[in-house]
Amino acid sequence: MFTPGAPVPDSAPWSAAVGQGGGVLRSVNIGALALEAGGELPSVTVAYECWGTLNGDGSNAVLIQHALTGSTHVSRGDSEEDGWWEGLVGPGEVIDTNRYFVVAANMLGGCYGTTGPSSIAADGAPYGSRFPFVTIRDSVHAEARLADALRIGSWHAVIGGSMGGARALEWAVTFPERVQRCAVVAACAASTAEQIAFAQAQVLAIRQDPNFAGGDYYDGAAPTLGLGLARRIAHITYRSEAEMGARFGRAVQPGEDPLGDGRLRPSTGGSVAGRYRVESYLDHQAHKLVTRFDANSYVAITEALMSHDVARGRGTLREALAPTGCVEFLVAAVNSDRLYFPAQSEELAAALPGDVKVRRIDSAIGHDGFLTEVATVGELLRESFFAD
Amino acid sequence: MFTPGAPVPDSAPWSAAVGQGGGVLRSVNIGALALEAGGELPSVTVAYECWGTLNGDGSNAVLIQHALTGSTHVSRGDSEEDGWWEGLVGPGEVIDTNRYFVVAANMLGGCYGTTGPSSIAADGAPYGSRFPFVTIRDSVHAEARLADALRIGSWHAVIGGSMGGARALEWAVTFPERVQRCAVVAACAASTAEQIAFAQAQVLAIRQDPNFAGGDYYDGAAPTLGLGLARRIAHITYRSEAEMGARFGRAVQPGEDPLGDGRLRPSTGGSVAGRYRVESYLDHQAHKLVTRFDANSYVAITEALMSHDVARGRGTLREALAPTGCVEFLVAAVNSDRLYFPAQSEELAAALPGDVKVRRIDSAIGHDGFLTEVATVGELLRESFFAD
Repeated sequence: MFTPGAPVPDSAPWSAAVGQGGGVLRSVNIGALALEAGGELPSVTVAYECWGTLNGDGSNAVLIQHALTGSTHVSRGDSEEDGWWEGLVGPGEVIDTNRYFVVAANMLGGCYGTTGPSSIAADGAPYGSRFPFVTIRDSVHAEARLADALRIGSWHAVIGGSMGGARALEWAVTFPERVQRCAVVAACAASTAEQIAFAQAQVLAIRQDPNFAGGDYYDGAAPTLGLGLARRIAHITYRSEAEMGARFGRAVQPGEDPLGDGRLRPSTGGSVAGRYRVESYLDHQAHKLVTRFDANSYVAITEALMSHDVARGRGTLREALAPTGCVEFLVAAVNSDRLYFPAQSEELAAALPGDVKVRRIDSAIGHDGFLTEVATVGELLRESFFAD
Repeated sequence: MFTPGAPVPDSAPWSAAVGQGGGVLRSVNIGALALEAGGELPSVTVAYECWGTLNGDGSNAVLIQHALTGSTHVSRGDSEEDGWWEGLVGPGEVIDTNRYFVVAANMLGGCYGTTGPSSIAADGAPYGSRFPFVTIRDSVHAEARLADALRIGSWHAVIGGSMGGARALEWAVTFPERVQRCAVVAACAASTAEQIAFAQAQVLAIRQDPNFAGGDYYDGAAPTLGLGLARRIAHITYRSEAEMGARFGRAVQPGEDPLGDGRLRPSTGGSVAGRYRVESYLDHQAHKLVTRFDANSYVAITEALMSHDVARGRGTLREALAPTGCVEFLVAAVNSDRLYFPAQSEELAAALPGDVKVRRIDSAIGHDGFLTEVATVGELLRESFFAD
């Protein structure tokens, strides 16, 4: 995988857009970006991967938007690492790279190449605490400049799951003439009170880690305990109660005793108990994330997601969605999702122009079904956008 | 309210059991207590409140068990502070203190009078990190000694909600001859993988607070940030998504701007955004708890709740429940509860001897419905246990 925060060399975008097997991280500098919440970022790099070849009239481009801690690496391509929607994009796959030119861009504020808090500011030091508040809409504006650089006028489709779905929806509303088809998977029109509440807990977990140092920790130890706790909280919400129950139940982690040993210990640490298997599993999820993600980016992107409201400044939801110019809209929900409830997808679909039916992704796993049920996502996309 | 961790003078239990209006915290010392996980506590105080008068044959006693951060203060009684089930217990109420002698005991490991981590050990210092691992079952054993001291042979009823329900269930199984009626409200037979997962996040939030100091913080600043975060996580699970959505939605806390101001700030703290109302609400919940609860007790009792499994060491759940000697069993679930799902109450009821139907508490609020819907809880108890 790409190293979080590592500088990405700018490429010549037009040449980069031709004949890609994917799996190579590229970037363009889009210059200064004015931000929705005020202020600007003086020099923004947008990192991306692409697969396939853009055709002469630029009509075969597909944008795939990643989720909160996702990256541009949708598909293995010429790399050796599987992508997060492996099997969906490639020669002969649903999104056939013999026919389509597929792009994935790293979110503004991220740590996989696009300008974020770990990026080096003009003074030669990382932004850290100086990184401004960015929104989903800001990232979409940055991505539009990437599309300009790649000479993509209008996307055949913009597709995203979870936060990627929020980004896809923002695309369809912010640039209605540039999005012909839009897929919003396991996402909704605006982050809800509960989504905000869980997000707040995650942001606090990081901010309260003393290593966070207000965001200026790049010279010292990273706030891995806080980031790990944030990930544990998030991961619970990504899975269903039933899935965790069936998979772990009350099983005990081998060699450990969750009831502790009951001894009165003179040392610090208390009578720390051993773990249940579900605790070990969440520890593992936390460990994996802290080795690949920057805590400041986690905060920045989480706060951007909290800000998600496609109707902000655009009237009612129905009014906000009215200008979308899509010939097809795919709204899909995982039926066991308890972070982005199917009812929220129904609300979105009902407010969209035309007759949009919510398609279900049948999975007991919860929200993460949008990642695990690649075949179902592929079928829905094939039917809706890639049938011919 | 009683001050967390403040010493409670022992009272003469028998005299204390006669003619109480309630609202006065009393306690008995039950001596040394051997613990399920091993080891012992050399000297245990059990704090309790009581209302009404024990009759001559000791047949009119009712035990009410509090939830995680609850206390003995079920009902105002002669005090000036409302109890957490105010209106359920008192003269002429469903649990009529003109007829019944009602007892509520503080959980072992707690901070409202019963021996816990903030209690003073034999060496004159608080237990802190030296407090041993205690279980729900340990607390029930301690409470049985309280019953002995109060000369209560068999309870007319043992009643509890949430963790109190776990304690009530443990009573019915551990001392089947001493529980004639048992009410398990918004609780289940064993803590599930998801309940353990959310509990782990809460325990970690506290342990990772540098002020926690392994549990030995009583000489310094308390780990209020960690405890507050634990409470926020817990509180989200106590409420339903629908309730939070209807109550707060995406409303902004007056005078604050959740999108921040976008300025690049040189100081620490980053571009800290203002809050949504749901964040302010959770901040308030956190603040309230840290002013009334001890972090070590929160960890100890949470870990005790994680350990809850009425079938541990007792065969299958059905086998474990077979010896209960209750003439009536009330199992009730809040229909919008997403921490203790109604399906878990159904599992418990199905495994109980006899034909036990789960009664529903109709509330959109989520788990906390067992606290807010006092009238419904009262009606169910009246029908089941207090009809005559």
